[in-house]
Amino acid sequence: MNKQATDITQIDKNFAAQKADENGFVYSNVQCAPFSLEGLPWFLENKQAFYRLPKSLTAKDVNEGALTLCNHTSGVCVRFRSDSPELMLRAKLAYGCDMNHMPRAGSCGFDSYRKLQGSELVYNKTLQPNPGQADACALIGINPEKRLCEWLINFPLYGGVESVEIGLKEGSSLLPPFSRKVEDPVLFYGSSITQGGCASRPGNAYTSMLCRKVDAPQINLGFSGSGRGEPAVARAIAGLKLSAFVMDYDHNAPSPEHLQNTHEVFFRIIRDALPELPVIFLSKCDFYGTEPDVRRRKIIHSTYENAVKAGDRNVYFVDGSILFGNKMRDACTVDGCHPNDLGFYRMYKHTLPILAQALKNAAERNRTQ
Amino acid sequence: MNKQATDITQIDKNFAAQKADENGFVYSNVQCAPFSLEGLPWFLENKQAFYRLPKSLTAKDVNEGALTLCNHTSGVCVRFRSDSPELMLRAKLAYGCDMNHMPRAGSCGFDSYRKLQGSELVYNKTLQPNPGQADACALIGINPEKRLCEWLINFPLYGGVESVEIGLKEGSSLLPPFSRKVEDPVLFYGSSITQGGCASRPGNAYTSMLCRKVDAPQINLGFSGSGRGEPAVARAIAGLKLSAFVMDYDHNAPSPEHLQNTHEVFFRIIRDALPELPVIFLSKCDFYGTEPDVRRRKIIHSTYENAVKAGDRNVYFVDGSILFGNKMRDACTVDGCHPNDLGFYRMYKHTLPILAQALKNAAERNRTQ
Repeated sequence: MNKQATDITQIDKNFAAQKADENGFVYSNVQCAPFSLEGLPWFLENKQAFYRLPKSLTAKDVNEGALTLCNHTSGVCVRFRSDSPELMLRAKLAYGCDMNHMPRAGSCGFDSYRKLQGSELVYNKTLQPNPGQADACALIGINPEKRLCEWLINFPLYGGVESVEIGLKEGSSLLPPFSRKVEDPVLFYGSSITQGGCASRPGNAYTSMLCRKVDAPQINLGFSGSGRGEPAVARAIAGLKLSAFVMDYDHNAPSPEHLQNTHEVFFRIIRDALPELPVIFLSKCDFYGTEPDVRRRKIIHSTYENAVKAGDRNVYFVDGSILFGNKMRDACTVDGCHPNDLGFYRMYKHTLPILAQALKNAAERNRTQ
Repeated sequence: MNKQATDITQIDKNFAAQKADENGFVYSNVQCAPFSLEGLPWFLENKQAFYRLPKSLTAKDVNEGALTLCNHTSGVCVRFRSDSPELMLRAKLAYGCDMNHMPRAGSCGFDSYRKLQGSELVYNKTLQPNPGQADACALIGINPEKRLCEWLINFPLYGGVESVEIGLKEGSSLLPPFSRKVEDPVLFYGSSITQGGCASRPGNAYTSMLCRKVDAPQINLGFSGSGRGEPAVARAIAGLKLSAFVMDYDHNAPSPEHLQNTHEVFFRIIRDALPELPVIFLSKCDFYGTEPDVRRRKIIHSTYENAVKAGDRNVYFVDGSILFGNKMRDACTVDGCHPNDLGFYRMYKHTLPILAQALKNAAERNRTQ
């Protein structure tokens, strides 16, 4: 038996304390404590890959588009506390999408939020990659008063990462974040709009706005063009501990018939496993009143109605056609479909009361049970 | 004396009637009637170059940044009427900027608005160039009912064009647009924010939103990082016939001292030439309450106050710090400075009442004089 103390840094280099660089920053890998990495429920099962579904799912279970898009880090964020006056972010970027209708700041960039004691998370800085950039290293936060504060850093919406490190000024504190008000994640399943196309930066996707406001972790299973409602995805979701589930794949069902054949089935798989989980059904926000638009909304509403009729007290319906509001509704998208930051803000504003009520109702039921 | 009728198409190929292409579209150059090209007050003087200042101005008069940015077509649009069921746009793109914090749809793209009788202009389509694209040809409008309607097509905010043609289905009508409610242009002078950074598409810049709403032509003299308030620019503006002038270069004055030395001088040049022109002073929207921010606002307010004290009835002041509103103000920019579409919508919302009132007061004075 080897009596020497094991040097964990020889086995796992993530644990190695790094020396300060020439600018006085010490870098630490976000995969290790005290960082709290959110939005990757199968992270350990997937051997610490930044991948949004269980790697055990294959093209037999889920369309290949969704499996590829799993490499995008939409909804992923890291949280921690520090008093460092400046924060750097160093990352190896991968799978980036440079799209014509979305800035790289949103598709493959990061943004940060800072929370001072007694206040809310407030936007701080954006890291905006250049075309084709694979290695990023830039300032991601400023905290000139050197106050001990909580940080939340959002990952790319339409790109992925191989590694991410946070650089803090040598001698600064690095502590775990405070616990969330709502402990279990809100999970969103859906389309490109769910994934965050076309927010100008990650924190402005409607899913991120909602989770910041209700103070819950986010799991984003938005798969651009590829949210098809396969039962295997529903079974994966059904195995998680969640605070709420937002079902938002109307845009991506290839036809109303496809939606009809999958929507209630998808919901039932989750409901059977998680009878008390609040489930919010969204119909699509890019609603123009066409016959297929109306038919799709009716299908989604039927899933909701059938649940209510069966005595389900934990279902909610949001009519997507109201999400962009009335005033200058035509300013809400970049291309007639994908919300810009105005569209996402309005989606947030109209969905928040329902999500907040759903979480409140669930918490009250838990207390009285 | 030559008795043969002159064939204008031999002299100016812009007048040559083109044949329909394989898809049945006939293309016409927007530089010729019946198209109405707006936003280029020195177009003829500049020999039909898409350039936003008089070409007679040189680096002796204006900083070189602004002179280069003159090639960007911010604020330029073409208007016309047609009953074509589809519209194509064919353009030679030039001087494009591919920025990290702005989608190409906004920087070097076009968007279109359609007005059916009795209603307002409503967003229709976006042309979104690929990286480095020099020749663009894509659908820019759909009008499936084939109604005779008015079109407005916005040009790139951070890019330029060498030529633009509109393709209409063979046999469709092509007519001049209706006249504007407000005949003379509203001119905006300022910074990157004035130029439209970082709107997701041209029509979502705050200047475009305002001009659509009050139904006035727009002249955009926003020069990214280069709105320095030179007297030569003021003299050029002072030679135009305008309905209102929005002075918005706080962001770009290199220091409060520079602002102090140029702001009132700039205004006086214009006021001396155009004593009745409504002038709206804006202080910067990316206001964080720092000492320089406060000092700058005070300088701008002094220009306004001095004018009021001297009996000027045509000046207005907008405190930039209110432009992003209160609720989730931190969601209004992509990088802490440049508005996204939410920020631009709020700038529009808070500036509109002032601009509308200024135009109304001016119209009433004209009537009673």
